[in-house]
Amino acid sequence: MIKLYESQISGNCWKVRQMLAHRELPYESIELSVVDRSNRADVIGGANPALRVPTLILDDGRPLAESNAIMLYLAEGTELIPEDPYERAQVLQWLFYEQYDHEPNIAVARFQLMYAAEPDEAAIERTQIGGRRVLATMDDHLRGRTFLVAERYTVADIALYAYTHVAGDGGFELSDYPAVQAWLARVAAQPGHITLLGD
Amino acid sequence: MIKLYESQISGNCWKVRQMLAHRELPYESIELSVVDRSNRADVIGGANPALRVPTLILDDGRPLAESNAIMLYLAEGTELIPEDPYERAQVLQWLFYEQYDHEPNIAVARFQLMYAAEPDEAAIERTQIGGRRVLATMDDHLRGRTFLVAERYTVADIALYAYTHVAGDGGFELSDYPAVQAWLARVAAQPGHITLLGD
Repeated sequence: MIKLYESQISGNCWKVRQMLAHRELPYESIELSVVDRSNRADVIGGANPALRVPTLILDDGRPLAESNAIMLYLAEGTELIPEDPYERAQVLQWLFYEQYDHEPNIAVARFQLMYAAEPDEAAIERTQIGGRRVLATMDDHLRGRTFLVAERYTVADIALYAYTHVAGDGGFELSDYPAVQAWLARVAAQPGHITLLGD
Repeated sequence: MIKLYESQISGNCWKVRQMLAHRELPYESIELSVVDRSNRADVIGGANPALRVPTLILDDGRPLAESNAIMLYLAEGTELIPEDPYERAQVLQWLFYEQYDHEPNIAVARFQLMYAAEPDEAAIERTQIGGRRVLATMDDHLRGRTFLVAERYTVADIALYAYTHVAGDGGFELSDYPAVQAWLARVAAQPGHITLLGD
């Protein structure tokens, strides 16, 4: 059976849970702390050079890491990845944007405010400035669009939903971004949508 | 003809130049400053929500952004992307690792030390710690391997080469990472390899 090393509070892990649910693949969940990471090398050192969750172990024992790479692997051949090469590339564009601009600001602000043992004030200030720029960028893009790419629900929407829908935890005011809010509601209304933290 | 908004000093832009050279695709280069970004919204605002270089404009006028997404688009169907789904996923894993862990440390340290008008000491300290961790992770992975994935040269090697080979500019000592150094030499020896800054 597939094993998933994960954390229930992680949006990156939620992406993988959402894809596994979409594919109706059973898996064993192994919970790792995102605060005390001292056992990471022992537990997933051989499977993920970055020592992060999510780390997936396929049913034949082969490991795979990086939430967006795992999503793309699980989504291949489904309707969640467009077949058109340019639309595929646009999906990838948003996935890289998510990991470079979005997650390091919005997820880090959330982590610092909600979970960090000793919050880093400089990191909070930096990520809140960066996160507001990201939300404004998404709001501009989503104005007049239903989804991020090709007017349909894709893995790009799953990736960006992960931390956008809990941006309030990071001190962001989602009501300032109405096109983002309308898009969040469309993603949450997709058949088979699962929630973060079961809430 | 393809247009590439780029900077000659950017490793992210080098990735795209390397792919265009590999595909033998002619293109028009439009140089943008990575220091004074005040004209970005006017020049590429409609093409790239993140307002960054590289931004590619295909010959039919459609835009594409994010260096690794552009590389994957240009590499599709070539030997630079494995056909095996798991090997493809491993390539993607390293591309996301590059944008999340590698570039924000090693490229940012280099930018701060080489190009920033007012270097940010806190950013330099943070990125040098992070960058040394990344180089150690790569060195562990590359020990006993010839390339990052599937024992062959792929877009993952191009992506990670971009800023690793100029890590010295960011204050990193590459001789501390012998497996990385040997891999850099293998990548540079690939047929059709082009250099950054023409050096």
